[in-house]
Amino acid sequence: MSKKINVVIWNEFRHEKEMEDVKVLYPDGIHAFIKNFLKNNEDMNITLAALDDKDQGLPNELLSKTDVLLWWGHCAHKEVNDELVEKIRARVYLGKMGFIALHSGHHSKPFKVIVGTNGNLSWGRNQKEIVWNMMPSHPIAAGIPDHFILEEDELYSEPFYIPQPNALVFGSWFEDGHIFRSGACFIRGAGKVFYFQPGHETCKSYYNPHVQRIIENAIRWAAPTEIGYEITDECPEITSATIAEFDKK
Amino acid sequence: MSKKINVVIWNEFRHEKEMEDVKVLYPDGIHAFIKNFLKNNEDMNITLAALDDKDQGLPNELLSKTDVLLWWGHCAHKEVNDELVEKIRARVYLGKMGFIALHSGHHSKPFKVIVGTNGNLSWGRNQKEIVWNMMPSHPIAAGIPDHFILEEDELYSEPFYIPQPNALVFGSWFEDGHIFRSGACFIRGAGKVFYFQPGHETCKSYYNPHVQRIIENAIRWAAPTEIGYEITDECPEITSATIAEFDKK
Amino acid sequence: MSKKINVVIWNEFRHEKEMEDVKVLYPDGIHAFIKNFLKNNEDMNITLAALDDKDQGLPNELLSKTDVLLWWGHCAHKEVNDELVEKIRARVYLGKMGFIALHSGHHSKPFKVIVGTNGNLSWGRNQKEIVWNMMPSHPIAAGIPDHFILEEDELYSEPFYIPQPNALVFGSWFEDGHIFRSGACFIRGAGKVFYFQPGHETCKSYYNPHVQRIIENAIRWAAPTEIGYEITDECPEITSATIAEFDKK
Amino acid sequence: MSKKINVVIWNEFRHEKEMEDVKVLYPDGIHAFIKNFLKNNEDMNITLAALDDKDQGLPNELLSKTDVLLWWGHCAHKEVNDELVEKIRARVYLGKMGFIALHSGHHSKPFKVIVGTNGNLSWGRNQKEIVWNMMPSHPIAAGIPDHFILEEDELYSEPFYIPQPNALVFGSWFEDGHIFRSGACFIRGAGKVFYFQPGHETCKSYYNPHVQRIIENAIRWAAPTEIGYEITDECPEITSATIAEFDKK
Repeated sequence: MSKKINVVIWNEFRHEKEMEDVKVLYPDGIHAFIKNFLKNNEDMNITLAALDDKDQGLPNELLSKTDVLLWWGHCAHKEVNDELVEKIRARVYLGKMGFIALHSGHHSKPFKVIVGTNGNLSWGRNQKEIVWNMMPSHPIAAGIPDHFILEEDELYSEPFYIPQPNALVFGSWFEDGHIFRSGACFIRGAGKVFYFQPGHETCKSYYNPHVQRIIENAIRWAAPTEIGYEITDECPEITSATIAEFDKK
Repeated sequence: MSKKINVVIWNEFRHEKEMEDVKVLYPDGIHAFIKNFLKNNEDMNITLAALDDKDQGLPNELLSKTDVLLWWGHCAHKEVNDELVEKIRARVYLGKMGFIALHSGHHSKPFKVIVGTNGNLSWGRNQKEIVWNMMPSHPIAAGIPDHFILEEDELYSEPFYIPQPNALVFGSWFEDGHIFRSGACFIRGAGKVFYFQPGHETCKSYYNPHVQRIIENAIRWAAPTEIGYEITDECPEITSATIAEFDKK
Repeated sequence: MSKKINVVIWNEFRHEKEMEDVKVLYPDGIHAFIKNFLKNNEDMNITLAALDDKDQGLPNELLSKTDVLLWWGHCAHKEVNDELVEKIRARVYLGKMGFIALHSGHHSKPFKVIVGTNGNLSWGRNQKEIVWNMMPSHPIAAGIPDHFILEEDELYSEPFYIPQPNALVFGSWFEDGHIFRSGACFIRGAGKVFYFQPGHETCKSYYNPHVQRIIENAIRWAAPTEIGYEITDECPEITSATIAEFDKK
Repeated sequence: MSKKINVVIWNEFRHEKEMEDVKVLYPDGIHAFIKNFLKNNEDMNITLAALDDKDQGLPNELLSKTDVLLWWGHCAHKEVNDELVEKIRARVYLGKMGFIALHSGHHSKPFKVIVGTNGNLSWGRNQKEIVWNMMPSHPIAAGIPDHFILEEDELYSEPFYIPQPNALVFGSWFEDGHIFRSGACFIRGAGKVFYFQPGHETCKSYYNPHVQRIIENAIRWAAPTEIGYEITDECPEITSATIAEFDKK
């Protein structure tokens, strides 16, 4: 029996407590809503974490077992501890954990430092969005049609100052005249990162079955693979003993 | 004094003779129109070529001096000789010539065989297009604003079955709900290729100063660089004499 | 129970009949040797095919069921029918089949036309090769150490005139002073392509357990995924009826 | 007359004062040596800067005029102020400055934070290195042969935990059995970054004419281009006024 994927869904979890229009959509928080639609995936163990929990929701004993970390944050990016960000970055780079940044997570500390971006983009009012499937054979696009429509999500617009993704899976059209790279994969160190734009707190994008399938696919894609040697967080010296091995063989 | 760039603008040149609405926009052909707006670039020598010219417009003596070949074709892709396509491909791969495919050139024989694509996309009626600048520091984007509007061009839509470009410089929004990778660079062999979508025969996109600047920039970008060794169209054998050079030094 | 992967191992199968030093290593052909080391993978149905078989080994009824095609060819690339090459290319681009080019397959017709390359490289005598794992979290690198040694394979050297791969998984060091991109992934159309350099006919590289694991991994990686819509080998027109759908929703 | 490129060569400048074998090769510092071999490039204004200078060599009035920053550091990476690193990163991301990391600069704070990498690699004794030209048509490879030999440089080895470069221009072979991606380009934000491995403090690589040409080429490549709009270090809101512009046109 194969090992389950330990998933942690981290949420800032402030809007849902403070804003009526968010509370009505996500009464237990966006993280709880995501956990709920993933519940039939028997290959996943899902844990919830929030900014205002102890250790900002990610104590060492939890983080050190996490295979994939999902991150939803917006108004409190600055409150996230730099030490925690550094632990997340290191774990991703060592290939022990995948990282999925959701929506306004483009500006979160972990996303920016892991990927190498300021995360900047332009933004505007909620409006109709059409998501296009630009790489249909990518594992994250499995089962997704050539396009799907979101009645309403927040406008995010190019230029989006991200590095060229390793794979650009989805791109979006917005009613007011904008486009956006809305689903993009990055390999960083030995870890996998996915950014996915739909998911504004006042919109119902997480109710959409295609959005749900994409998140499910992304978790499996980002989960660590069997790395065939021990990666350390340093620069190993190759001594003559090591070199000699080449000659022996 | 630095060498001028020998540019050949190749045009199928059929629509302009047969369709009144095209003739009125481009009376001497799209190729002549492009030549005209490039005429103040003193670093370029520009020659026109058309499908119905002798040797399909590209006799060996012209092709062998061409630094950058622009290609506009649509209804007569199949008429282009395979031998000519092979000569174009080889010249690009050897780093002797850049290739710029314009608009419906996505389905031209040279573009498909050079890049490795079937060139497929979806298409529809002429409509408003907004071109977004996604890589503002790329040489082809020099001087281009973050976006510009084309009152009308033909709808081209994702999924566009091209390989991931070496650089995705422009993306477009279309009024009816579609997006498209409208400006993309490819390195093939030792040569440079640019695909640029605006330019339908019944539209005035080539009158747009940003479109004109992009084509001007692309010609300079695609022009061959100083390659520091002779590239041959074969697989050279490394003999022991060659290997011995390593030991001598 | 999930569907098995239909794998076809295609081999030119000439050297093994004609050259004593090859026959002794691969008496039933390289393709049969590969089939044998894959035999414990219960998720794979493996079929052998050879150039001198009927329909060059790939009749329509076999090709139309193939999920992953491995290709070993060398001295008879030119004998492969262009019509067959076109059928292979189309099937890969439509996302119905992955393609794995082995060793001298860099110069095979299908590899060149699918990827968009002349396949050129430099080559020389058999010698010690060390394969380095440059993307340890890639599925094709699963279980592979940071490097492994091949006592002897044919020298292949940069410059290798391939497009930038979507993923550069392995690179190789050769005793005489050369390097080579020895394991590279390409996405073409909706299909997946892997090139893997070790495997000269007079060498025992296919006996190496790491080489065997890489080929096993590559088959699983290249197998078609669940594409969520029908891809056709044409450019579909978006009619007003289709556009109207956007407005309805 | 076109504007000169303002180049700053920043050097840690400690080894040259403290180690006899470095002093004899680079008596005035590696930075001064590089400035000297670049002196005939009349399109460059070159300034030297060192860690122990006032403001760590990069006061605001200098940094704010710098077009391309070269960075050589090794033993004192940690002494570089985080505030300075942040100013460098922001300037690169805004497209106002290119950044060239030399040799052990793979571990410098600016390189790591700009590119998104921990900079890790393996390393060992000085030995023969052969640099291979993998992208001969790239501007940084202009005039460089297919390979050149360095009698001795420090061993740097894969796995090198960098993101896939936008362009992999050079790769290196090392005598003891290792390979390394030794010349790699990254686009970050709107800025250009080049990493170049040769240049250990006890070796004469900077005396090599090909190394010198590569650095000269890289400076011109990394220099800012004419960006056609104002990039700000924030996320601009698209207000209804802005949206209205689309409708007007």
